[in-house]
Amino acid sequence: MRTAAVIGTGLIGTSVALALSRRGVEVYLDDLSETNLKTAASLGAGITGLPEGPVDLLIVAVPPGYVGATLADAQRRGLARAYTDVASVKNAPQREVVSQGIDPSSYLGGHPLAGRERSGPLMGRADLFEGRPWVLTPTSATGRDALNRVLELISLCGAVPVVMDAADHDRAVALISHAPHLVSSLMAARLEHASEDAARVAGTGVRDVTRIAAGDPALWEEILTSNAEAVADVLDEYAADLAGVISALRELAAAGAGETGTIDAVETVTRTVTQAVTQAVTQTGREPHGAEPAVVPARDRLVDLLRRGNAGQSRIPGKHGAPRAAWGSVPIVISDAPGELARLFAAAGAAGVNIEDLRIEHSPGKAVGLVILQVAPEAAESLAVHLGERGWTVQR
Amino acid sequence: MRTAAVIGTGLIGTSVALALSRRGVEVYLDDLSETNLKTAASLGAGITGLPEGPVDLLIVAVPPGYVGATLADAQRRGLARAYTDVASVKNAPQREVVSQGIDPSSYLGGHPLAGRERSGPLMGRADLFEGRPWVLTPTSATGRDALNRVLELISLCGAVPVVMDAADHDRAVALISHAPHLVSSLMAARLEHASEDAARVAGTGVRDVTRIAAGDPALWEEILTSNAEAVADVLDEYAADLAGVISALRELAAAGAGETGTIDAVETVTRTVTQAVTQAVTQTGREPHGAEPAVVPARDRLVDLLRRGNAGQSRIPGKHGAPRAAWGSVPIVISDAPGELARLFAAAGAAGVNIEDLRIEHSPGKAVGLVILQVAPEAAESLAVHLGERGWTVQR
Repeated sequence: MRTAAVIGTGLIGTSVALALSRRGVEVYLDDLSETNLKTAASLGAGITGLPEGPVDLLIVAVPPGYVGATLADAQRRGLARAYTDVASVKNAPQREVVSQGIDPSSYLGGHPLAGRERSGPLMGRADLFEGRPWVLTPTSATGRDALNRVLELISLCGAVPVVMDAADHDRAVALISHAPHLVSSLMAARLEHASEDAARVAGTGVRDVTRIAAGDPALWEEILTSNAEAVADVLDEYAADLAGVISALRELAAAGAGETGTIDAVETVTRTVTQAVTQAVTQTGREPHGAEPAVVPARDRLVDLLRRGNAGQSRIPGKHGAPRAAWGSVPIVISDAPGELARLFAAAGAAGVNIEDLRIEHSPGKAVGLVILQVAPEAAESLAVHLGERGWTVQR
Repeated sequence: MRTAAVIGTGLIGTSVALALSRRGVEVYLDDLSETNLKTAASLGAGITGLPEGPVDLLIVAVPPGYVGATLADAQRRGLARAYTDVASVKNAPQREVVSQGIDPSSYLGGHPLAGRERSGPLMGRADLFEGRPWVLTPTSATGRDALNRVLELISLCGAVPVVMDAADHDRAVALISHAPHLVSSLMAARLEHASEDAARVAGTGVRDVTRIAAGDPALWEEILTSNAEAVADVLDEYAADLAGVISALRELAAAGAGETGTIDAVETVTRTVTQAVTQAVTQTGREPHGAEPAVVPARDRLVDLLRRGNAGQSRIPGKHGAPRAAWGSVPIVISDAPGELARLFAAAGAAGVNIEDLRIEHSPGKAVGLVILQVAPEAAESLAVHLGERGWTVQR
């Protein structure tokens, strides 16, 4: 690839242009916003304005709702030999390729899974896509030339190509990105009017659950609107489970009210059906043929959901795609002094152990914290011994 | 405090006993489980069996449903001069103090906000409570002697006392801990049967939202059951917001279906009422007196929720209780080589800057990642310059 054009110089478009420019590709930029365009160019992303002759690849990096019209216009003007887009949804652009009469052989949808908490060209970076998945959605009509040019783009950006069907992609990001964002926002919204006392007892759990709720509402309005149906489908299922949890909790609250004894009393109230039927319902999610409608005890319904949460959580890959559970944990007590983390990491480095991830457990108001180092499972024991020998307090 | 007794040697009881023993208090242990009791004693938590004469403070560390009965029995036997418990709910034990005729002047409820992902005495640590909040729920009947003994306990454990009303406490932990746990489990449960492709495109967002869903179902069954009503109240409000979000998404999906144009078309469909009325409804959460029932456009309802999420997220304190937004961020590109984090932290330490928190953005399958250092706002610029001068790639 020697020449490329990027239409739309927001965070993603600017980052693509920076990555291509860095690798020696001649990049032309266009944007309705003169400010964005000039900013991107001043960062070294490329040359403003599109050339007469066709470039090797044109990348449409405008909001999802504008992709179809932008592609149709670019093709009409013969701006490039091949076309792609980087919108966070893929089904709607695909439909528009058909409805707007765009040549499907020279177009291939794409979606780099990368982003930052802030948007705009100033946030753009050449390495934004390094090691990130970049979804491609070729169809039977996609030409080999277009496919190879987009694969080259992904390679130049340092990303990892993942081929998916457009509709599958939209369902996947609804499940893995868009619905989690709203789940986080909904929980964070509950905290808006929390008492000072409640905020004071907040721990790392609620902090993690609500972290992404800090995202830009305008950006997420665009994303959610463009994939509204798939997100609503996921949330409908979520809402059904939620209703089940609430009803289980209400049942437990009613059974426990006024009760002064032990937890067993609650169980006596709710364990009203045979374990066999319960088991069948819990495992298959529906009632066995011919059986009476089964009432699953409230505690079992609650535990079933918690277990499904365990199972689902373990599906999420950690760094390098390895399941997170596969890492070994080495928890270290450290003081709050400057340089303390440095000493710890230097010690771990001296042991030849690569730290795959870490978590810091905060100690509000105190000069002591816990750092949990995640390392390859076979390295955990030797690292713990190594650090312990060097005077670190390792929690076993 | 010279003598103490701990009934219940799970994670919390054992950790309390370890902390007190370390500080020279003579600690006696009791547990229905002989295994737990022996394990705790072998860790140095204390002496098995309760003495004849009264100890200075007896700490009940049994599951929430057993606190009342255990307290009543201990008082009847005159085991201590003062009593407390460490259950994660405070309203039910308080009620049982009344219903079981326990002397309220010598008892004071407590709840250390500390825990680990795994339970049991083997996980116990003397420093589990270092710097963590420890809620106290005194009543007008609480004697000064009991209050001071529990304050001494908290001090010996290195925790930070926070006085709250029992019912307020239960509502606070429902909001800040129990409901977020279920919200996380519910999202994780959706991922149980996710496609391989969907799991492949998972990023840090969904990983954070679902992290605590890995918690022990049996432990959380206990916790949620004991605070069922308060948790259900929070989730009812959550469910109402969720229903609103789903209906907004369905409306947007319907407006967008078959549409080939721009996002503006959706807005034209949904912007059917005056901004003035919309504004009033959005801001007050109810309709102004005398006005027609207002239909808030779907996009506005979505943005309103996202903004409330922003507001709520910012309420959660970071380390040292400072709002997380108050830290400055310094993002650094690093390679995956062992020792790379060590070099980075050493460089930051050499600059005299204390790293308050950090986040690693993963690069699956690639040898490059982004480390975002969180530092005091006034230190961010100088740290970035310092690191940049020493050859680090700082993302600005």
